[in-house]
Amino acid sequence: MAMTSTSIASVPSISSSSPTPVLKYAMKFPLFPSRQIASAVRHRFGSTTTATSSVSSSSFTWDDVFRAGESIQNDPSDLQGFLDKVKLCNRNSEKQSEFMPFVIENQIVGYVHFGFADHLRKFRDVFVFPKDNDAFGSNLGCHVTLHSLLKTAEDRTRAVGDVVKCLGKELIPGIRNELYPVISSFGAPVFFSVERAAAPYFGTKAYGVHMNGYVEKDGQKYLWLGKRSEAKPTYPGMLDHLVAGGLPHGISCQKNLVKECEEEAGIPSNISSKAISVGAISYMDIEGQRFKRDILFCYDLKLPEDFIPRNEDGEVESFKLVPVRHVANLIRNTEFFKANCNLVIIDFLFRHGYITPENFGYLKLLQSLRNGDCS
Amino acid sequence: MAMTSTSIASVPSISSSSPTPVLKYAMKFPLFPSRQIASAVRHRFGSTTTATSSVSSSSFTWDDVFRAGESIQNDPSDLQGFLDKVKLCNRNSEKQSEFMPFVIENQIVGYVHFGFADHLRKFRDVFVFPKDNDAFGSNLGCHVTLHSLLKTAEDRTRAVGDVVKCLGKELIPGIRNELYPVISSFGAPVFFSVERAAAPYFGTKAYGVHMNGYVEKDGQKYLWLGKRSEAKPTYPGMLDHLVAGGLPHGISCQKNLVKECEEEAGIPSNISSKAISVGAISYMDIEGQRFKRDILFCYDLKLPEDFIPRNEDGEVESFKLVPVRHVANLIRNTEFFKANCNLVIIDFLFRHGYITPENFGYLKLLQSLRNGDCS
Repeated sequence: MAMTSTSIASVPSISSSSPTPVLKYAMKFPLFPSRQIASAVRHRFGSTTTATSSVSSSSFTWDDVFRAGESIQNDPSDLQGFLDKVKLCNRNSEKQSEFMPFVIENQIVGYVHFGFADHLRKFRDVFVFPKDNDAFGSNLGCHVTLHSLLKTAEDRTRAVGDVVKCLGKELIPGIRNELYPVISSFGAPVFFSVERAAAPYFGTKAYGVHMNGYVEKDGQKYLWLGKRSEAKPTYPGMLDHLVAGGLPHGISCQKNLVKECEEEAGIPSNISSKAISVGAISYMDIEGQRFKRDILFCYDLKLPEDFIPRNEDGEVESFKLVPVRHVANLIRNTEFFKANCNLVIIDFLFRHGYITPENFGYLKLLQSLRNGDCS
Repeated sequence: MAMTSTSIASVPSISSSSPTPVLKYAMKFPLFPSRQIASAVRHRFGSTTTATSSVSSSSFTWDDVFRAGESIQNDPSDLQGFLDKVKLCNRNSEKQSEFMPFVIENQIVGYVHFGFADHLRKFRDVFVFPKDNDAFGSNLGCHVTLHSLLKTAEDRTRAVGDVVKCLGKELIPGIRNELYPVISSFGAPVFFSVERAAAPYFGTKAYGVHMNGYVEKDGQKYLWLGKRSEAKPTYPGMLDHLVAGGLPHGISCQKNLVKECEEEAGIPSNISSKAISVGAISYMDIEGQRFKRDILFCYDLKLPEDFIPRNEDGEVESFKLVPVRHVANLIRNTEFFKANCNLVIIDFLFRHGYITPENFGYLKLLQSLRNGDCS
């Protein structure tokens, strides 16, 4: 399961072999600053019901999921729980001033933290800082670009790749040996490609495909949810879409989706080809020196009632079919989902009429789903 | 059919009794500046097929609609035709500087053109311009507000209503005696209400509900389209949604939709109550002294195959069922639709997979559907 997501690299100071339960939990909820871990552990619904008080701080089971899904909230029209999940994917926007544009051929393709830039300065034949010598000592106009001798995409990919390797595990953990295209906007020319784990350090955009697989029975809709393998380095044990994947260089969304459907859920192409594209969501998340700018293309696939997903790549522990109304409860009352899945499911809830204009904050929540640069 | 739309008032200099065909056409396509009328008359698809060359400049028939719907384009993946329709609803954004904020209780509720403001200045017991006496002669901070003695919504509604009546047909044509709430964002407190036809002169937001009614037969989707009565003062004879309406003060979207479904298309409440809210679109259009800021809540209603809509209020000439793919052709190749309907149908095309990420400009078009302040 290759997802566009906040990866293990988002908490570089916390090792995955950390012995303490709190840090282990932090690995599961890497979007939380440590001071919020305690409240995350509580699961907000715990305050209105004791049904889930037995949930451990480091894991949850499908039984916990079903109990939380069925829990009744005080005010079902309140969208705050959804907004909170959107915020989890859009942290620290006020810190954009700590980043300088990464410019190629006069196009902004990313943003680099001033601190990370200091590491890049050592590689003078790769990275250039044209306005460093500003006579007024100001950062105005400051940006980073690639050396003018790096003219082709291949040259740039190789040179930047060498730097990423050189900076190594200390600075950029979680190297995947997977290349993401560096572009100014979707469909625009590819300037070069960058290692997936390094993309947030260069603030380059990352695109993905996320699919909600649903079933309709007796007029009620159900979503197939996956529970990620405990062995996954990112978001182990958490809830996930039926199918999702990052979009590597050189493959279309549609082809990538069909491929991921096969690998992640055993959906044959004669079924997955019926998935329909339904829009896109975006977010921008700043954490330390990382600037994630993700755009996820959203898909719906209505599955036959008798279809049972089957994971083929060992990245999903199991799948369960959950009523959409219960999924909505999970989204707003727990932190069980991998962070960006919340947004794609909220988009589903909008399009399928589960969130309506009568709910206070309808337009605010709707808009927030494209909080990032969705281009 | 009470729609949130550019009304006859948008071309105040052209009388509806105008004898010349060109001006009559302009009434039908009031969003076009006169220099664009000739090209609008040509209908862009005329350049790739002669099938519709017989379309008159002042009207079209259902036969014209069917022919244009079936016409094949050179490049079906090109979204430019859709983008052009979005632009028709979002003109002159560069002229925002010709407007000053309309402020109530420290909230911006609208924008008033400097020229229109000069008329309002005559009503000193209603409108106040606090920064008019700027010592530097600059417009900075310039805004208009209501007199501090107008404390209640009722007082404000009456006082502004009197001014609107006084300015009369010369300045604000098309008075409907229908009140729209003046708010800073949807769900926020209502400061007062303003005559619907006057809303664009105060740049206050207007909300509406638009519903795509569709049928699924043998796996293919069809949209019910209405053709507006030739007697309608706005957009006579043009294509329309099955159901749409402005959102007056004091009624919820859901209730308004059910009411409009009954009046406009004879859809009984046991069917219309199954309409699902699917999101919202927004646009901002500046034309002369008018600043339209519309937000339309979008609905889908899947209708039984044997349901035949029946107009009950005389505002629709007739309805026809058209394959969605043909509707898409109509949107991008003709100007047959009432302008804002284009956007709501493009939103439908996105959500139902007729426009995909493989189409160049996908994200740009998707984003453009909420070009206005969607709050």
